[in-house]
Amino acid sequence: MAKFYGIGTGPGDSELLTMKAVHTLERLDVLYTPEAKKGGASLALKIVAPYLPERLTVKQRHFPMTYNKEEKEQAWERIAAEIKADVLAGKNAGFITLGDPMVYSTYSYLLELLRTEIETETIAGISSFSYMASRVGWPLVMDEESLAVIPVTSGEEALHQALTGFDTIVFMKAASNLPLVLQLLEQHHLLEQAVLVSDASMASEKITFGLNQLHDDEKLSYFSTIIVKKER
Amino acid sequence: MAKFYGIGTGPGDSELLTMKAVHTLERLDVLYTPEAKKGGASLALKIVAPYLPERLTVKQRHFPMTYNKEEKEQAWERIAAEIKADVLAGKNAGFITLGDPMVYSTYSYLLELLRTEIETETIAGISSFSYMASRVGWPLVMDEESLAVIPVTSGEEALHQALTGFDTIVFMKAASNLPLVLQLLEQHHLLEQAVLVSDASMASEKITFGLNQLHDDEKLSYFSTIIVKKER
Repeated sequence: MAKFYGIGTGPGDSELLTMKAVHTLERLDVLYTPEAKKGGASLALKIVAPYLPERLTVKQRHFPMTYNKEEKEQAWERIAAEIKADVLAGKNAGFITLGDPMVYSTYSYLLELLRTEIETETIAGISSFSYMASRVGWPLVMDEESLAVIPVTSGEEALHQALTGFDTIVFMKAASNLPLVLQLLEQHHLLEQAVLVSDASMASEKITFGLNQLHDDEKLSYFSTIIVKKER
Repeated sequence: MAKFYGIGTGPGDSELLTMKAVHTLERLDVLYTPEAKKGGASLALKIVAPYLPERLTVKQRHFPMTYNKEEKEQAWERIAAEIKADVLAGKNAGFITLGDPMVYSTYSYLLELLRTEIETETIAGISSFSYMASRVGWPLVMDEESLAVIPVTSGEEALHQALTGFDTIVFMKAASNLPLVLQLLEQHHLLEQAVLVSDASMASEKITFGLNQLHDDEKLSYFSTIIVKKER
C-alpha cells in the first residue's frame, strides 16, 4: 500500500542520513521538497541527491516563510492535497526535511493534515544539536544532567529560566537575536562555556568555542545554534 | 592515521544507523562493546552485527553499573588504556553506544579520558526520544516551543519545574520512579498528553498513549521513556 513518508536528512552531510532514510528514498515514486524562496535551490534536495532513484518525480514546492498564518496554512493545505492525491493514486510520496522531522520542521504541519487521511510514516533524522555535540566532543547530558532546547525567539524570561534550571542549554535560531543571547550568557557567567556552530556539517561549517570575542553585530548564518554546557 | 571512533547505534533497529556509522564500522580493526553484566549479550553489538567486517576483533568489555564511583572510574581507565594502545599500534578502534553517544552514554567518560591522548571522532546517532517522536507522530517542538529532557531521577522539584516551564518534556529512565511521574502528571493534568514507549524500535517495542490506565506498580522495561506534550 502506498504511503506518505516524512524523511529527516540530518543537518547537511549526506552521510548523516540513516540507512532507513536511504532505503525509503530508493523506493519513492514522488519526492516533495521545500523551496524556501521561489526558484531557490533546495538544500534538503542537495543532501539526498546521491540516493535518489532514476525514475523519481521531484516536486519542489514553495513553503512561504511568513508571519501571515493564513498564507502559510493555505500553502500547506494545497501541498497536502497534492500529496494525498499522489498516495491515493498508488504512489509512494516522500517529503524531505533538514535535521529531524520532529524538531522545528514544517513537516509537522503536513503530517497533521495528512495522518488521518492516508498512511504515513516518519523517519527520524540527526538534529543539528545532536550532530554538533558529537562534532565538538561535548556530551549533551550525562548521569542526572538535564537538557533544554529553546529558540532564541522565546523571549528573555524563558531563556533566563532555561539557563538557571538546566545543565545544558541549546539555543536554536541563534541568529535571530544574538545580542540577547550574549547579554544573558554574560549575566550567567557562561560565555566561556558556550559553543556556536554555523552551517553544521556543511562545507561552510564554522565553529566558535567561547563567545567572549563575539560582538552583537556579528553576522551569523541562518543555520546557527549555540550549546551552553555549565560543567565545562 | 588510526583513530578512536565513538559510534551511535540508534535505539535498536539496525536500519537506524547513519550511513557514516555503517561506513566507519566497515573500516574498523577493533570494536569495543559494552557488556552491562558480565557474560550478558551486548544489545549494541546485535544492532551493528549486519555491518561488521569479517576480520574484525570484537572486545566485549564490562562497564560496571554501580554507584561506586571509584570502581566505575577504574573500569573506564582500564578500557581507555586498552583502546589507546590499540590506536597507537595503528588500529582503528571503535566503541558502540545505544542511541546518541552524547546523550546519557558511558562513552562520554571514555572520550574525556582519550581526547587529548589520541585522535578521536564521534558519530551521532538517533536518540530514543527522537525515534519515539517519529514513531508516534508527535512533533517534539514546533515554532516557538521549548523542549526539556530530564531523567526521572532528578528529583520532584526539577521535574515539576520542567513540566511548568516547557512545552514538551521527555522523561528519561522512566522505569526508575514511575509513581513520581504519574503523580506529577496527574497534578499537572497531563496524564492524557503523555506517551510511554518501552524498548523503542526493538521487536519487543510497546507504546502506551495516555497514562491514565497505568498503575504505580506497573513493571516497565529498563528502556522506557515518556514524552509529554502539552499542546496535544
